[in-house]
Amino acid sequence: MADDGERRRVMPTAEELRVWRLFIETAEALRAELTSRMQSESAMSPGDYAVLLALHDTDGHRLRSSRLAEVIGWERSRLSHHLGRMERRGLILREECAADSRGAEVVMTDEGAAAFRRASLPHLRDVRRLFVDALTPEQLAEAEGIARALRSRVDAARGS
Amino acid sequence: MADDGERRRVMPTAEELRVWRLFIETAEALRAELTSRMQSESAMSPGDYAVLLALHDTDGHRLRSSRLAEVIGWERSRLSHHLGRMERRGLILREECAADSRGAEVVMTDEGAAAFRRASLPHLRDVRRLFVDALTPEQLAEAEGIARALRSRVDAARGS
Repeated sequence: MADDGERRRVMPTAEELRVWRLFIETAEALRAELTSRMQSESAMSPGDYAVLLALHDTDGHRLRSSRLAEVIGWERSRLSHHLGRMERRGLILREECAADSRGAEVVMTDEGAAAFRRASLPHLRDVRRLFVDALTPEQLAEAEGIARALRSRVDAARGS
Repeated sequence: MADDGERRRVMPTAEELRVWRLFIETAEALRAELTSRMQSESAMSPGDYAVLLALHDTDGHRLRSSRLAEVIGWERSRLSHHLGRMERRGLILREECAADSRGAEVVMTDEGAAAFRRASLPHLRDVRRLFVDALTPEQLAEAEGIARALRSRVDAARGS
């Protein structure tokens, strides 16, 4: 247990804590609202969309599963289960490569590409309406500075 | 499919989309890092902490489960399963009230209060280090304005 001096030195003030809670709960509410809209508009989860977006951004719409895991920031085992479900829905294919630790090559199908295009327009319209248009141009620039500062702090702290 | 005019009018620009992704991915990375730290420092999940914080903030450390669900923003069925696990760990008790649709009264035990106090210090120290201290005082004030603007937009859009 810390004494009062320790507590004052390391703890956020009530005001700082209020801003923290508002910030993190708002980001979570925004993500939840966009997820729920994507589900109802396109029957797609954020994970489906992230996988298709990553494949869409490559030449040939294909990536090694190890690289795909890095790009979307998921553990390989979680990704592998998710890809199994997407493969059964015809959105992607996996082409196994024998004796290669980088994993199967994941390929977006024509059906996956069409599903991605259909989901993109309503999703990006929602991002514009709920994020971009909610902020002034000054706030959008400030949001970038704040996100950069937090990102470099969290990357430095990760695993420390 | 939208034509190009429609696309230009409703879609974010590449620059706006870059800020959006940085913002939402950073908030998610921050939440994930704090969750992982809370798990390893205190063997407590964010859900456990949210429940204990809500009870801690009340007189008598007790709340109806229907009210608790509102305070932490969870569906009642999800909360009920979670409370079952917390009850088995001795952190809370549920006192059933016959013929009352507001649900059981949820009471923080002495053991729950002690666990909450133990988890609070490292968690709040992490919030200070990863959020408050990562920002300038100006950025902290801007973060509040941005969060308020986004919150009122997402609240207005919810269910629309």
